[in-house]
Amino acid sequence: MSLLLTGIAELTTNDPARGDGHADPGDALLGVIRDAALVVSDDGVVEWVGAADEAPDTDHRRDLGGRAVIPGFVDSHTHLVFAGDRSAEFAARMTGTPYDGGGIAVSVAATRAASDDELRALVAARVAEMRAQGTTTVEIKSGYGLTLDDELRSLRIAREVTAHTTFLGAHVVPREYASDRAAYVDLVTGPMLDAVTADGPTALAESIDVFCEPHSAHAFDGDEARTILEAGRAAGLALRVHGNQLGPGPGVRLACELGARSVDHCTFLDDADVEALAAARGATVATLLPGVEFSTRSPYPDGRALIDAGVDVALASDCNPGTCYSSSIPFAIALAVREMGMTPAEALHAATAVSARSLGLDRRIAPGQPAELAVIDAPSHLHLAYRAGVPIVRALDL
Amino acid sequence: MSLLLTGIAELTTNDPARGDGHADPGDALLGVIRDAALVVSDDGVVEWVGAADEAPDTDHRRDLGGRAVIPGFVDSHTHLVFAGDRSAEFAARMTGTPYDGGGIAVSVAATRAASDDELRALVAARVAEMRAQGTTTVEIKSGYGLTLDDELRSLRIAREVTAHTTFLGAHVVPREYASDRAAYVDLVTGPMLDAVTADGPTALAESIDVFCEPHSAHAFDGDEARTILEAGRAAGLALRVHGNQLGPGPGVRLACELGARSVDHCTFLDDADVEALAAARGATVATLLPGVEFSTRSPYPDGRALIDAGVDVALASDCNPGTCYSSSIPFAIALAVREMGMTPAEALHAATAVSARSLGLDRRIAPGQPAELAVIDAPSHLHLAYRAGVPIVRALDL
Repeated sequence: MSLLLTGIAELTTNDPARGDGHADPGDALLGVIRDAALVVSDDGVVEWVGAADEAPDTDHRRDLGGRAVIPGFVDSHTHLVFAGDRSAEFAARMTGTPYDGGGIAVSVAATRAASDDELRALVAARVAEMRAQGTTTVEIKSGYGLTLDDELRSLRIAREVTAHTTFLGAHVVPREYASDRAAYVDLVTGPMLDAVTADGPTALAESIDVFCEPHSAHAFDGDEARTILEAGRAAGLALRVHGNQLGPGPGVRLACELGARSVDHCTFLDDADVEALAAARGATVATLLPGVEFSTRSPYPDGRALIDAGVDVALASDCNPGTCYSSSIPFAIALAVREMGMTPAEALHAATAVSARSLGLDRRIAPGQPAELAVIDAPSHLHLAYRAGVPIVRALDL
Repeated sequence: MSLLLTGIAELTTNDPARGDGHADPGDALLGVIRDAALVVSDDGVVEWVGAADEAPDTDHRRDLGGRAVIPGFVDSHTHLVFAGDRSAEFAARMTGTPYDGGGIAVSVAATRAASDDELRALVAARVAEMRAQGTTTVEIKSGYGLTLDDELRSLRIAREVTAHTTFLGAHVVPREYASDRAAYVDLVTGPMLDAVTADGPTALAESIDVFCEPHSAHAFDGDEARTILEAGRAAGLALRVHGNQLGPGPGVRLACELGARSVDHCTFLDDADVEALAAARGATVATLLPGVEFSTRSPYPDGRALIDAGVDVALASDCNPGTCYSSSIPFAIALAVREMGMTPAEALHAATAVSARSLGLDRRIAPGQPAELAVIDAPSHLHLAYRAGVPIVRALDL
């Protein structure tokens, strides 16, 4: 039994070949069909996509009342496994206390102290909150455990809700290793990585990630990051990198050189970084996280310049307790448009098609694809940025 | 029968005398009580406020599960009575088309063409959307009618949902009067104002407002604005002013001189404007609308400097189809903290206590006050800015 969805004022397919031929470049990029219809099988696979007046007959119909339908957001960078409250740190930062990554230790202590069930409930609540805002696919990193057992526990809890888990033992050097950083890198690349991959390379984690940031005493420099990423790659994990967040650094070029799926933040780039990203098009995505710049009062990366240079640009939330406790992809889209010079269409594409690619996924709405959809209480995706801050988009429950 | 609300991790009373004596200046401003309880009568009046362990017995109890409770937001500047869609104008502006107020004519045409029931349904949906985001009191302006009949209709429809209606016949000079501005001012101050006040000074509108903006060919200069405001005052209406939005101008000083309850936008101020506002403290509020600066890519007003100068600063949404189609007060609060140097406590105070004052209301949580409350899915009001873009606050239905 198939379900016919009608009353779709505008459908973003992310398939330029499928659009209905509008001259608008944004509509072309998104493969927009106006007055569209969709048929979904009862096991959640798209069976038919097209103009409403050409839709086939089905047993069941549902009228979406003139709303816009988009691919569900793919949030490809989150840190959802944590306990504790750092709102006071945020308030202090807004009145001048700079961010250097040191507050991560607060979350590490609270996360270690939490029970499995407490962490599981926190993660479930955050994933539900994201789904209520249109996110249907989420990547989740470990990184607030920083012991072998606590990192494994974080990954297990994350894996219960998503296939897209990332081992981030190299989030920061924990306090207990501050005087022997090399020993911590050995722990991450040795016993931790062995345990993460013990049941098969991607049994627990799809990717490995590192916070490569010479400007933070807590994070990892280029040589340490290379060691960690090469070990992860050798163990069969895909690579992701936190790079160039707090200042210029080697993260972006290292990610491109090693074929990482994504390098995230990209806040402080020089010309060589942009050239490396452009040359890595099709392999390495630049994932921008403007909620972080908002919540740390940092300058924003120049998304416009990256796109114009030919870089694959994705958007994600970086939902985490320190630098951005926003799980809202619509908010990231609004910031991309207001602050980074991206068009509404580019921002939506970045938060769906490109972020999906950084997780090895295809996020088009096309026959044979899973029906991971979101619906907007408005006739056009333009309203995501136009109605900044207003909760008008949610995952579509079929 | 009274209802006891328990499980309140933090209660913002807006009554400094009622706070539990924290040293934090934000908590003092907000009159914060931690681990609080509230008793509400069955006709919605606050009967008791205090520490949970001192709460009286009541027949009914409701546990809010460790959430924060705040006074419901008072959105003291909105334009909710309109039809039509201007999302494409927003998208064009984000790629460089400047805003000059000319797009208002698009909304005027669509609003005039809509039926009463269409407008009524649009307003109801917007008020419900705001309530779902924590706003319990809303001011609504006319201003997309700009004929006698259409302005009256807008005010009647607005008055069905709020007592706080504002006659904004002087939103812009409509196209049909472009070559005879004086005739339009005569219409506003004569037949329109007579009709608005025919059944008593405030039977249909509580206030009169004018878009005083020499930088827009569509809006009103200082002399025109004075004529309109003086006529409104003589007819018994309170005064509100759109001032200094697009550039320096006479709006702010005029508002202070005439004893307006509020002058709104205040984006471009000189020292004399700030001095006038500080001198008008207790009479005239400066209502900042940062969603407008976000959605028009304008510089933000310096909220910090205004507060430090002794100005009463309120926050509101300016929800309207042109310059800010955001109805989100939490978003305005996040912008106030990120972009205007206000503390989270100052921003919350501005969006409740001070905006209320600009409508002649008292928005403290105290015995005898109406229980207009909002509840946050977090233990502290700090999360309103900390969790930017995430829908965590809603009006509390009792």
